[in-house]
Amino acid sequence: MHVMINREILTAAINDTGRAVSSRTTIPILTGIKISSHSEGITLTASDSDISIEYFIPLEEDGNLYVDIKKHGSIVLPARYIHDIVRRLPGEFVEIVVSERFLTTIRSGKSDFNLNGLDPEDFPRLPQIEEEKVFSLPSDILKAMIRQTVFAAATSELRPILMGIRWSLEEDQLHFIATDSHRLASRKSYVESSSDVVLDNIVTPAKSMQELSRILADDDSLVDIVATDNQILFKTKNILFYSRLLSGTYPDVNRIIPQKSKTDIILSTRAFLHAIERASLLAKDAKNNVVRFSITDATVIEVSSISPEVGKVTEEIEASSFDGEEINISFNAKYMIDALRTIDSDEVKIRFTGAMSPFMLNPTDHEQSLYLILPVRTYQ
Amino acid sequence: MHVMINREILTAAINDTGRAVSSRTTIPILTGIKISSHSEGITLTASDSDISIEYFIPLEEDGNLYVDIKKHGSIVLPARYIHDIVRRLPGEFVEIVVSERFLTTIRSGKSDFNLNGLDPEDFPRLPQIEEEKVFSLPSDILKAMIRQTVFAAATSELRPILMGIRWSLEEDQLHFIATDSHRLASRKSYVESSSDVVLDNIVTPAKSMQELSRILADDDSLVDIVATDNQILFKTKNILFYSRLLSGTYPDVNRIIPQKSKTDIILSTRAFLHAIERASLLAKDAKNNVVRFSITDATVIEVSSISPEVGKVTEEIEASSFDGEEINISFNAKYMIDALRTIDSDEVKIRFTGAMSPFMLNPTDHEQSLYLILPVRTYQ
Repeated sequence: MHVMINREILTAAINDTGRAVSSRTTIPILTGIKISSHSEGITLTASDSDISIEYFIPLEEDGNLYVDIKKHGSIVLPARYIHDIVRRLPGEFVEIVVSERFLTTIRSGKSDFNLNGLDPEDFPRLPQIEEEKVFSLPSDILKAMIRQTVFAAATSELRPILMGIRWSLEEDQLHFIATDSHRLASRKSYVESSSDVVLDNIVTPAKSMQELSRILADDDSLVDIVATDNQILFKTKNILFYSRLLSGTYPDVNRIIPQKSKTDIILSTRAFLHAIERASLLAKDAKNNVVRFSITDATVIEVSSISPEVGKVTEEIEASSFDGEEINISFNAKYMIDALRTIDSDEVKIRFTGAMSPFMLNPTDHEQSLYLILPVRTYQ
Repeated sequence: MHVMINREILTAAINDTGRAVSSRTTIPILTGIKISSHSEGITLTASDSDISIEYFIPLEEDGNLYVDIKKHGSIVLPARYIHDIVRRLPGEFVEIVVSERFLTTIRSGKSDFNLNGLDPEDFPRLPQIEEEKVFSLPSDILKAMIRQTVFAAATSELRPILMGIRWSLEEDQLHFIATDSHRLASRKSYVESSSDVVLDNIVTPAKSMQELSRILADDDSLVDIVATDNQILFKTKNILFYSRLLSGTYPDVNRIIPQKSKTDIILSTRAFLHAIERASLLAKDAKNNVVRFSITDATVIEVSSISPEVGKVTEEIEASSFDGEEINISFNAKYMIDALRTIDSDEVKIRFTGAMSPFMLNPTDHEQSLYLILPVRTYQ
């Protein structure tokens, strides 16, 4: 192989592809990124046991030359070195020349690296996905759906299926749910032209979705999504992102979402978030960061927390509306902070169903997001 | 005590004072910051075994009210909590009320904290310093002098005296030297109106100087410096910063600075730094990050490095001037990078005295800075 690649584009490609490289793998070839040339341009590929990423650099775009192929070929180069090298090279283009025994020269300006490459024939093939169930979603919507659910997935391996986001798609409505059994996040979105695609019990690992989210553009360019029984593929203009799916049956959580409430309040998302953040400061070393929430009169809410060794804190917030019974409830401040940080609306609606039953949070401007938090029993 | 303090000023004061709080101390009172009121304003104090900081907040400044004292007193509050609390409080002012048994209420807006304080009588007294040897230096010059020497101090406790910066002051010239015995950094500066002050064998701990540097303003406001046999005190408008001195005799390093050279070159600081950074990339896991430097013809310098498992790198840089013998020399890339990063001039002058003797770096625009690096013996 002998190719010249625009350095900025190559740096971006290595950055994104590198998200699929695990530094802890015991399989040497998987610590590398495969670079291949073909008639359309250059493809970079990386893979770990969960995700695989393929990044395509075209020969040219918008009249700018990105790739000049002098001799076709492919090579696997160590990801941790080429990332740093390419990022710091001095020239506008990077020349890559592969000679005998995979010895690779990377040249730019007056800088000249010789790296021991690996045999591209040893690099695993990417999953073969038949394009059965295809639908599309704007990139920024997909990013928002991930951000607003992924934090609620379990991080403990006690119940592996809960370490993912459950997808369902029915009648043009895509629905993400994540729960660690103490709190739940649910986010819906309308999907166009998917009338023939139905998804159920598709569970994507939370970690894969976090990596995907970092790669997705913050614009409304469409992402094509293809799901099979054990893999899901996301296609953007330059990237193919594959993730394995979690196997097992996701619990039927829809039925634990309360259908009615006893106390409804609306208050400022930001003011409430800041009050909870302050109330949780004294408990930062405690195992359970429990905050007590009580409505003392019609519109004043008191948030308080006690840490016997350090002290106590009391916060007052005014609700902009209150309807129903007075309530006293305790919950883990972290769950509330996680939820409030992903709510984009100025105000949040909280619906309580009783002191020991899960309560619900919603943005006030749409019904597509729902958060559920299980209260904590206290003896204060 | 019952006081109101402007929240922004108090946050800045806690930030700076907190640099003297050690989180690892076994003495509970030293995990706190002492807050005292007096007729002029509020003083915050913190101390660990090496440094003590006293921060003064005046009653008012430039017509702005900073402090309102309703009842005089003092208290010690846990640094790790009050830092986070005060930073996040919602109001413009913070009210601090100390009641019985050092229970302290911190109030701002609708936020109300009750903290268990500690007895201010238990807080250690700050060192008493007689103002014998006083001289002054602009804050930004002192910062630069620290930055350009502190990196060369030893980090290993094998020779504790080398973990400091040696100060000397004679005939209005202040001189900092630091060395870990593999490389040395020297920085001089003229000091006004100090004709009667002579300092010799004053060694300040590198760590203290780093903390001081973070607190010093980036402007030319004067810092008054008072040195005694075992303490040094830095006075700025609002801050008193005390550091203990290292005991022992600093080696006489002036005599190891070569007085003449065999090869002198001048080259771009930035281009050389980037070339060395790239050349050191492949060796990042190696114990010794050795880079080879050779002058192949009159003005072209080759920098190269070999890591048997990974590969090798060769960089070429053009020197803007060359005078003397050709040279081949190997050195630790980290020492060169540390020195080049603190050199502010566009070009750097390097003077070699032989392949196994220390070589010198200077900025080209003044003679106040000097760096010395000991080469490494290689068998390449």
